Amino acid sequence: CVVSSCFRAGEEEQQAQSKKALKKQQKEAEKAAKKAEKQAKLVSVRQETQTLPMAHHCRMEGFLLFYNSCDYKSADRALVRVQDLTPEKAEQQIWVRARIHTSRAKGKQCFLVLRHQQFTVQALLAVGDCASKQMVKFAANLTKESIIDVEAVVKKVEQKIESCSQQDVELHVERIFVISQSEARLPLQLEDAVRPEGEGDEEGRATVNQDTRLDNRVIDLRTTTSQSIFRLQSGVCQLFRDTLINKGFVEIQTPKIISAASEGGANVFTVSYFKTSAYLAQSPQLYKQMCICADFDKVFCVGPVFRAEDSNTHRHLTEFVGLDIEMAFNYHYHEVIDSITDTMVQIFKGLRDRFQTEIQTVNKQYPSEPFKFLEPTLRLEYKEAVAMLRAAGVEMGDEEDLSTPNEKLLGRLVKEKYDTDFYVLDKYPLAVRPFYTMPDPNNPKYSNSYDMFMRGEEILSGAQRVHDAQLLTERAMHHGIDLEKIKAYIDSFRYGAPPHAGGGIGLERVTMLYLGLHNVRQTSMFPRDPKRLTP
Amino acid sequence: CVVSSCFRAGEEEQQAQSKKALKKQQKEAEKAAKKAEKQAKLVSVRQETQTLPMAHHCRMEGFLLFYNSCDYKSADRALVRVQDLTPEKAEQQIWVRARIHTSRAKGKQCFLVLRHQQFTVQALLAVGDCASKQMVKFAANLTKESIIDVEAVVKKVEQKIESCSQQDVELHVERIFVISQSEARLPLQLEDAVRPEGEGDEEGRATVNQDTRLDNRVIDLRTTTSQSIFRLQSGVCQLFRDTLINKGFVEIQTPKIISAASEGGANVFTVSYFKTSAYLAQSPQLYKQMCICADFDKVFCVGPVFRAEDSNTHRHLTEFVGLDIEMAFNYHYHEVIDSITDTMVQIFKGLRDRFQTEIQTVNKQYPSEPFKFLEPTLRLEYKEAVAMLRAAGVEMGDEEDLSTPNEKLLGRLVKEKYDTDFYVLDKYPLAVRPFYTMPDPNNPKYSNSYDMFMRGEEILSGAQRVHDAQLLTERAMHHGIDLEKIKAYIDSFRYGAPPHAGGGIGLERVTMLYLGLHNVRQTSMFPRDPKRLTP
Repeated sequence: CVVSSCFRAGEEEQQAQSKKALKKQQKEAEKAAKKAEKQAKLVSVRQETQTLPMAHHCRMEGFLLFYNSCDYKSADRALVRVQDLTPEKAEQQIWVRARIHTSRAKGKQCFLVLRHQQFTVQALLAVGDCASKQMVKFAANLTKESIIDVEAVVKKVEQKIESCSQQDVELHVERIFVISQSEARLPLQLEDAVRPEGEGDEEGRATVNQDTRLDNRVIDLRTTTSQSIFRLQSGVCQLFRDTLINKGFVEIQTPKIISAASEGGANVFTVSYFKTSAYLAQSPQLYKQMCICADFDKVFCVGPVFRAEDSNTHRHLTEFVGLDIEMAFNYHYHEVIDSITDTMVQIFKGLRDRFQTEIQTVNKQYPSEPFKFLEPTLRLEYKEAVAMLRAAGVEMGDEEDLSTPNEKLLGRLVKEKYDTDFYVLDKYPLAVRPFYTMPDPNNPKYSNSYDMFMRGEEILSGAQRVHDAQLLTERAMHHGIDLEKIKAYIDSFRYGAPPHAGGGIGLERVTMLYLGLHNVRQTSMFPRDPKRLTP
Repeated sequence: CVVSSCFRAGEEEQQAQSKKALKKQQKEAEKAAKKAEKQAKLVSVRQETQTLPMAHHCRMEGFLLFYNSCDYKSADRALVRVQDLTPEKAEQQIWVRARIHTSRAKGKQCFLVLRHQQFTVQALLAVGDCASKQMVKFAANLTKESIIDVEAVVKKVEQKIESCSQQDVELHVERIFVISQSEARLPLQLEDAVRPEGEGDEEGRATVNQDTRLDNRVIDLRTTTSQSIFRLQSGVCQLFRDTLINKGFVEIQTPKIISAASEGGANVFTVSYFKTSAYLAQSPQLYKQMCICADFDKVFCVGPVFRAEDSNTHRHLTEFVGLDIEMAFNYHYHEVIDSITDTMVQIFKGLRDRFQTEIQTVNKQYPSEPFKFLEPTLRLEYKEAVAMLRAAGVEMGDEEDLSTPNEKLLGRLVKEKYDTDFYVLDKYPLAVRPFYTMPDPNNPKYSNSYDMFMRGEEILSGAQRVHDAQLLTERAMHHGIDLEKIKAYIDSFRYGAPPHAGGGIGLERVTMLYLGLHNVRQTSMFPRDPKRLTP
């Protein structure tokens, strides 16, 4: 195949010969293919591309390649990552694969900025020993976002290149292979997409609005900010699971298609299921609890949860990722709170220690204070929170739920008083919690339930669950729930159930609030809300 | 609260007094609760239970407890796990929490088998110093599957107790607290549920059929076999992720609700989405590929995939867990195959090394040969497989797909010839693969695609994907696919896309085939098929 013919410098003649032979072979293959497909119009792009190199002399010019895994395999052509281009590599001849971030031609020179993930490096082509006039022209005409392989010599620079992540070196390019060409017109510019919001306004430069970003997510995800957000989010999941596995938890998989809407039937998506209807699970709670009743003792799961809620706020999605925990305890549900808060603390520490580059990168576009937390985690009772809010002038009843503004205010008061961005609010009023919440044994107005907050916003809701079928029946009746619809749930507790508690964490919220971002759509790769189902 | 009053022996009087005070308090609380709830019928079970201990003298009798996390927290009452009851603990006074697996009264004695997860121990109550007549009677009347705390002395036994996992010790019980009572009539017996299939028939003993198991999954999951299967499955996920994270992969989360059915629209579940309709994702493939186009380079995800296929076979589910991989490669898609096969090998090794107890436990009920694999993994070309099958008498065309019986036959032939239960079949005929499959550059009849097999059954299907919008358009047209419907998919490749390949693994199939089981419903906690939506 053609690709293998275009490699060693100074072998043009051999190449020309083998190229002829290959062309012949290719034509034959082309004929066979056409015959087989019986569609005269379908000429393979692969073949077109390979027979249309931009130039014939590899050493001096560019080349278009189409990677369809022909037998060519270049063990001797290792690729160096952009992030590894440092002064230690000075004067080395290397290959790099990267995107063209920007391109600027200037007389007989062409300056490229090459980008791979969060990392950028400057590359220079100059007419002379290394590059022909045609090659510089070829390079100058390459579209931004195209992926290229370049062979180049690494050169130390006198003055730091402030605009690149690799500030101490540049590449002197000798060959360019185009791996994949981008269309010339991009739906958004990456420079605009990483500009801090205020800055754009002041200098009259463009920023990119959220819908444009999300409509063109494939490009928006290439920004240094997006790369950092989602690498850090991958870390959140990993730290969550590793911590729990160390604590003896078992990972479970729970079904998302369910036969009955467990929590009363509101806000549930309906699915057609063969000749009947089903629902999408609003939470894995029933299944987590069944696993506890089946002696798994400590379980967690990571998976999508679905809420058919018509909420168009900065923190609601119709589909998000739940990090769910359920745990049998020995004597007191605070054992479970302690396990969850310790897990959160391990996550915060892991992010701080392993993802500092990503945090700094996000901060450049979205500045925020470092996330603060205490050890052990601060636990306040609901009563105390109400007292703090009242002292700050809020009027509210003892058994009234917290409004979103009051949650945020409370977050600020707690931060002032205790200097933490993370805390637990324990002992919610029984009246504002679901029927399966265990009442407080010491005060019937309250319950063994808790929320956890990051920067004043809720990230987890949890409780000790009623593990006794009779009490559960009574509580459901008290809430006016149709017992027939939750029969399977209640029956799960009839054959011996250990006391247990748990909770569900919203992954996107954790990432958003840890980084001090302001919209959960920034931390969901492909967010779903009442108005968005694409891409 | 009452619970805390019933603890130390020899303090009966103090207890009686504090109990009175507590009863008074409780009555008052009860009144307040009643008033607040304004429902005369709703007497809290919690309170009923606490005021109805089975006996007043803790030391000598049993007691019913209701764990609602009253302030009692027993730091001095550590619980020992059943699996840790070994001769080293002989003569120690300990507390154990476990289920009553079996119970047998015999004159003045009562023998219990206590069970926690996969582990069992014998416990003995005898009228005498330690236990009163009433207590033995109380113990004898406890229902199977109830959860109890026992205080007991660990005793070495002369003769191994063959029926228990802890064969060298038994417990001499002094106190019993009931944590949660089971109903007397169980829908299935755990002894029946772990009986090997043949054995039941021969001895005229019952086994439990699959529907009964699944209908009562909370109990069926308590068997040693189920406990082992799902602990091992948790290990599969963990090994999969750890291996990939070590290789530099990033975990991504992809949406399950999608706006268009990507693969032609057959076998897709429809969801009502506010005022419009949506679909459940049949695979995360489009989103994995978008992440590749967004420079994440190596991604994986673990999540549910949905297939509205009316297949009622041993290996099809309508919802299963996909372990998905997508990876940009440098020069050849075999780089990706190598990454995937190495990941599978790491999983097999990890299971073999860390889950031997679980494997042995499952083998007791479902005997199978140990799983064999080679390093490096065997890779056969489709052509070779067809030749092997033809040599074995099968008639099939070059470009014909493998039928399920032929896959199994091939598995046996490969096992005979190469002694492996795991291999890759590479270079499938282009005609039998989806439109986005990259054609083989050397032979237009074939493609850069592959399946992987365990014990002769497919566990992964994958390919190099077409990363060029123009070729993708042509391939889609060739397949007669409405271009309008896949516009977003094709557009993803217009702004520079690296060559890439990937595949999706079915978690339940991996667990099933690794353990040599015969139905994928055994390895799905709550399986979904065209006929089953519950529990």
